[in-house]
Amino acid sequence: MSTSDVQQQTRDHLWLHFTNHAKLSAGGEVPVITRAEGAYLWDDRGRRILDGLSGLFAVNVGHGRPELAEAAARQIRELDYFPIWNAVHPRAAELAEALAERAPGDLNRVFLTNSGSESVETAWKLVKQYFKAIGQPGRHKVISRNIAYHGTTHGALSITALPGLRAPFEPLVPSGHKVPTTDIYRGPEHLRDDEEAFGHWAADRIAEAIEFEGPETVAAIFLEPVQNSGAAIPPPPGYFERVREIADRYGVVLVADEVITAFGRVGDFFAINRYGITPDIITGAKGITSGYIPAGATIVSDRLFEPFTKKENTFVHGLTFGGHPVAAAVGLENIAIFEREKLNENVRANEDLFRSTLDKLRDLPIVGDVRGAGYFWGVVLVKDQHTREPFTAKERRRLLDELLGPALSEAGLHARLDERGDPAILLAPPAIVGAPEFAFIEQVLRTALTDAWARF
Amino acid sequence: MSTSDVQQQTRDHLWLHFTNHAKLSAGGEVPVITRAEGAYLWDDRGRRILDGLSGLFAVNVGHGRPELAEAAARQIRELDYFPIWNAVHPRAAELAEALAERAPGDLNRVFLTNSGSESVETAWKLVKQYFKAIGQPGRHKVISRNIAYHGTTHGALSITALPGLRAPFEPLVPSGHKVPTTDIYRGPEHLRDDEEAFGHWAADRIAEAIEFEGPETVAAIFLEPVQNSGAAIPPPPGYFERVREIADRYGVVLVADEVITAFGRVGDFFAINRYGITPDIITGAKGITSGYIPAGATIVSDRLFEPFTKKENTFVHGLTFGGHPVAAAVGLENIAIFEREKLNENVRANEDLFRSTLDKLRDLPIVGDVRGAGYFWGVVLVKDQHTREPFTAKERRRLLDELLGPALSEAGLHARLDERGDPAILLAPPAIVGAPEFAFIEQVLRTALTDAWARF
Repeated sequence: MSTSDVQQQTRDHLWLHFTNHAKLSAGGEVPVITRAEGAYLWDDRGRRILDGLSGLFAVNVGHGRPELAEAAARQIRELDYFPIWNAVHPRAAELAEALAERAPGDLNRVFLTNSGSESVETAWKLVKQYFKAIGQPGRHKVISRNIAYHGTTHGALSITALPGLRAPFEPLVPSGHKVPTTDIYRGPEHLRDDEEAFGHWAADRIAEAIEFEGPETVAAIFLEPVQNSGAAIPPPPGYFERVREIADRYGVVLVADEVITAFGRVGDFFAINRYGITPDIITGAKGITSGYIPAGATIVSDRLFEPFTKKENTFVHGLTFGGHPVAAAVGLENIAIFEREKLNENVRANEDLFRSTLDKLRDLPIVGDVRGAGYFWGVVLVKDQHTREPFTAKERRRLLDELLGPALSEAGLHARLDERGDPAILLAPPAIVGAPEFAFIEQVLRTALTDAWARF
Repeated sequence: MSTSDVQQQTRDHLWLHFTNHAKLSAGGEVPVITRAEGAYLWDDRGRRILDGLSGLFAVNVGHGRPELAEAAARQIRELDYFPIWNAVHPRAAELAEALAERAPGDLNRVFLTNSGSESVETAWKLVKQYFKAIGQPGRHKVISRNIAYHGTTHGALSITALPGLRAPFEPLVPSGHKVPTTDIYRGPEHLRDDEEAFGHWAADRIAEAIEFEGPETVAAIFLEPVQNSGAAIPPPPGYFERVREIADRYGVVLVADEVITAFGRVGDFFAINRYGITPDIITGAKGITSGYIPAGATIVSDRLFEPFTKKENTFVHGLTFGGHPVAAAVGLENIAIFEREKLNENVRANEDLFRSTLDKLRDLPIVGDVRGAGYFWGVVLVKDQHTREPFTAKERRRLLDELLGPALSEAGLHARLDERGDPAILLAPPAIVGAPEFAFIEQVLRTALTDAWARF
């Protein structure tokens, strides 16, 4: 298959995701990735690219693992597919146990899905049926945070707090309500120097939203431990403790959406393990198989499962491919690689170095903030470092699409240019990288940001 | 891993899909499927089971194909994962072309997903944004048919016409409206002897619903070419022509939901090819990879894609794992197997024999109807063959759960016992089977139905 064939097939037949097709339809081209190994991708011109985004926050053990190829092939030869509808197969049961063992507290019950969107859908449906089962049928609403992305199917999209992603598809599920993020950089000015006070303020916005809606109508709070959209926003100290207390006070279910943060992204199988509280549900996907096979999981507390141990309550939800034998086999081997190679330990050992390497970029006038955790960082760009003046929408697009995009591509770095809040560069490399890759990333960003600033 | 471990892991940690957990939680067991090859499954006791349901309408080329194991492993070694967001990789482009070549008319544009639910979600979102793009922003409603199952995520569930699957999760997307099926067996009495008149009547119910809602608010009609839920309900002659005409008359998009019917189920890559019309969108999943890797596709007409070739219109939708390289590689090899082994031809050559073999069961007083197409059949059960008196809900459960379920399991036949309409046995074996398997199915059903009737 020659390059031009792939371009032509794409131009004629493929609908790329979140992609404007105007240039392609007019005869333009898109990048073609043909090969990957370790932390590197290669394109159809033979150029090597550092995968600074693990594909899309997924390939956490790195690319081209022969153990995962063999796990998939072996499982296909043994049992390619069978549904876990009133039946089971060994790999689904083993993966459920492996996930429950690594999840916090009493999160012992695993509903397996195919994607992050499906994990979020499953969590929401589960909470709604749970409340009906325990005699609180009015609880169906969800609180989530500004700019947060929780998926694109209609339910997940109703929780997603990006108006531009929702508007073309209204009306959606009429139950989504939004609160501010924990972005202290853009938080109220009087709280910018007091992380803990800011965290309490941000948590209290959730309590306020619950009061506004009426607690007896609110089912759940969905939060990412470190929020991706908006540029790797970590929780301030004390935030999650306060949120947990608010959820308990109002009898609302707390869902940690870990589609991005789980499986090593911040140095643990579940990021929430590093923030001192136990949610009622964890949603996951992406890194669960290091992205090698589509899969997801919704991990639920014993308390929420309990009503469903009764004859009168069946969770009337299911997915043909949920608990797929091949996905489960690859998920199990992915966990084995993590433990064999101590990848969570590697992330924890290196996170300060990654942070301090990126922090060097603060000497550039365009860099407003550097934040994140583990191997998940956002470099936030502003027009004025001193006043924090943001770029306008038009400037943002020029900066990202015309200047930084081509520059990073040219330099051989795959990162995410995020324009959902302040323009930002998101970094989430595989858990196998270390000092040399951090230095490469810093050098590429330094050059690209310096050039962009000069040409702006 | 011993059997008891799998049972214990399942009992303690897995949430099975569409499954009541009461018995399992009280110490009961579920069937454990451990191995599969060709048209057969084996359980953990070494018992051989004919897979009369292709897993769950998925494994259309049969189990244990070494070519598919090798395709998956080879792709993982080459390129395990990369997103098709503003980029592409060869397998996604090749699969898009292969699907477009086999889809009818001008359905040339392929949006790749991970599941049937996601394919349906994608189709609905696409239609909504399409109408906004062409200046008809009021069109968002969907018409679908009674008892039809279109998926379980919030959007797909709003289209699904099974009230019991929706009730625990209300409020859903407020845009779903329902019309009758083409089940002539339960259709208006005065039309039961005239298939064509009945088909026109059923199609006209769609026009009526559009008029009731107001055409300027209706976006799409979702229909399965042969409706699964309700027991393999085929379209009467002339039905789809009339539906196509109605869709055109009101400017509504016609979606053929082929999650179950595509990829050989009725002897073609797309069932709609056998019914003489071209829809505007086809949704698929399951058989696209013969279920070996989770995948789905939404295949769209050039006309619907056209507004999205412009700079001002971006379909703001995407899925991390959509167009997954491993799924696409397996999908391509699955098509190659179909063509190498002439599996569609096999289904078409054998469908009359399958039908006539099942038709023999009509001599049993419990059999009300036998219907379907290709390798997709429903045997409908009634309390009185003459009056068509249906079983009550309680009788239905006893019949299916206590009598037929254990009997088929004992006899080594995996089929679906459907209680979503009249109780029915659904059959959908892999496209590789023939006369001996049909005869086995008929014998097993004859014995089980005779015994059940005697004990009822």
